[in-house]
Amino acid sequence: MIEVLHARQFPLTELVLLASERSAGKSMATAYGEKQVEAFSVERAQSCDFVLMAVSGSFSTEFSPQITGNGKTVVIDNSSAFRYHEDVPLVVPEINESAMDGKLLIANPNCTTAIAAMALWPLHQHFKLKKIIVSTYQAASGAGAQGMTELEEGTRQALEGKVFPNEVFAHPLPFNVIPHIDSFQSNGYTKEEMKVVWETQKIFGDKSLACSCTAVRIPTKRAHSEAITIETEKEVSPEAAMEVLSTAPGVQVVDNPAEKSYPMPLTATKKYDVEVGRIRRSLVFQPCGLDLFVSGDQLLRGAALNAVLIAEAKLLKMPR
Amino acid sequence: MIEVLHARQFPLTELVLLASERSAGKSMATAYGEKQVEAFSVERAQSCDFVLMAVSGSFSTEFSPQITGNGKTVVIDNSSAFRYHEDVPLVVPEINESAMDGKLLIANPNCTTAIAAMALWPLHQHFKLKKIIVSTYQAASGAGAQGMTELEEGTRQALEGKVFPNEVFAHPLPFNVIPHIDSFQSNGYTKEEMKVVWETQKIFGDKSLACSCTAVRIPTKRAHSEAITIETEKEVSPEAAMEVLSTAPGVQVVDNPAEKSYPMPLTATKKYDVEVGRIRRSLVFQPCGLDLFVSGDQLLRGAALNAVLIAEAKLLKMPR
Repeated sequence: MIEVLHARQFPLTELVLLASERSAGKSMATAYGEKQVEAFSVERAQSCDFVLMAVSGSFSTEFSPQITGNGKTVVIDNSSAFRYHEDVPLVVPEINESAMDGKLLIANPNCTTAIAAMALWPLHQHFKLKKIIVSTYQAASGAGAQGMTELEEGTRQALEGKVFPNEVFAHPLPFNVIPHIDSFQSNGYTKEEMKVVWETQKIFGDKSLACSCTAVRIPTKRAHSEAITIETEKEVSPEAAMEVLSTAPGVQVVDNPAEKSYPMPLTATKKYDVEVGRIRRSLVFQPCGLDLFVSGDQLLRGAALNAVLIAEAKLLKMPR
Repeated sequence: MIEVLHARQFPLTELVLLASERSAGKSMATAYGEKQVEAFSVERAQSCDFVLMAVSGSFSTEFSPQITGNGKTVVIDNSSAFRYHEDVPLVVPEINESAMDGKLLIANPNCTTAIAAMALWPLHQHFKLKKIIVSTYQAASGAGAQGMTELEEGTRQALEGKVFPNEVFAHPLPFNVIPHIDSFQSNGYTKEEMKVVWETQKIFGDKSLACSCTAVRIPTKRAHSEAITIETEKEVSPEAAMEVLSTAPGVQVVDNPAEKSYPMPLTATKKYDVEVGRIRRSLVFQPCGLDLFVSGDQLLRGAALNAVLIAEAKLLKMPR
């Protein structure tokens, strides 16, 4: 988030790093130079205009409402704590920026949802979506830095015929596929899968949107990919969809099969825009449907970039 | 195929290895001991009861009909050369064994199709499928031994920050996802994707079955996985589906989320049965639909095992 703030030249006057007592006093290299970490307190947080929360759900549940209690500090929460609260907006600025008008606590969506939403929102506006079916190809770094280490070290060991114990993932991830991200719910779906359903409906403001997801962890490092099938209300052609997507903010159409050009983690990593391609007529929803493939950097669009975009949008509406 | 013949104690009296002139005379270690490769000729092939073809489509196109021309030698072709010929049966023995009655040339289906078919056929019989939507997670060995080497060597290099040139795959596969297997067709789908559509319809004997596929190569070594969404004509519950699948031949239900048990390449590799799990009510097709996940060894069910099962079924019907 600090890197994105700096890269986008967010007009900040001071960067304050708040963490637990344990980390207080530590020095940290940032894009803004060496900074010392301070111990978190509600009062110190309230002295800032924006608080970007990269904390656990339980920490956010306790402290986010306290911080915004001063009636002026904006809290952008990356946890899932408030995403489903009716009075807390869940925002992808390119989609539902106005949902945060007059609100101080704003929830940042799940990474898989945010990436799909970039491609689906322009299509929803023009062709009205009825059904969305998503299968994901999610990178190890979605489980944090330890997930990344476990994949890299595990792969190194696997290539030598050794076994590296899995702790972050439910099973060894190197050269494997794990259809299990987050905990299982009573309906047989994982929480990660239901987040895609719930959050897409909330961000799009349409509870009637039928959506389903299979969330799968695969041995990639960064950027999530998703195979998406949609049924639309209005008739849609790949050409019409491509035209709509080619001018959509936050989207890059990468769709030239003849040149072997389509979305991939290799090219989507460290990119702000979500890559969308493999756009073709659905063979099961005709003539009102499409199949497509997306790849997006889940650490950017799915987290840091989206949080900073929320802050930028809020800043523009602040009284000067 | 030789290993599977041996493991299943196929009652063969002689194993004959036929290859090009270039390989003739070479000695090869097999499950039946050291064997010398002979130069292929139609006459030599015709001296056998069964010919298992692991050759290119063009070779099969030329020679398969010549071999069966003697009116007695059975040719089981692993290429796609004859899969869509109206008078050549495309067979998964557990599904449409009777399609090969009176036929000498029999086509072995595409690996991705065969794996999905094992899970879908029992459901089709009981609940009648209307729509099938498949997203695949396909292993490097689907592109042959060189694909496997390119993944392993490429991964080794990638871990050291080096780049290993990709030749087998369209892009580097290590830690990447490539939504491109086989060549692109004019409708925007790849041939691999259309094989799943055409072959499922042919094997199930139902041209009205709506089917779509996104075929994706991922950095795994062996066993393909597939996320599948189905719409059925009759109402279906996960429990009813599980009951049907638990007695289906060639299928192993692996579906106990509480125990972190679901299909994975790690457990499906080198297994005859296709693993089926994550069975849950579809959230887009209600109450007539399911989401499920399958993993199957594409070298066994998708190739060698299926070919040998075809031979076994033919053998049982041969005049003694």
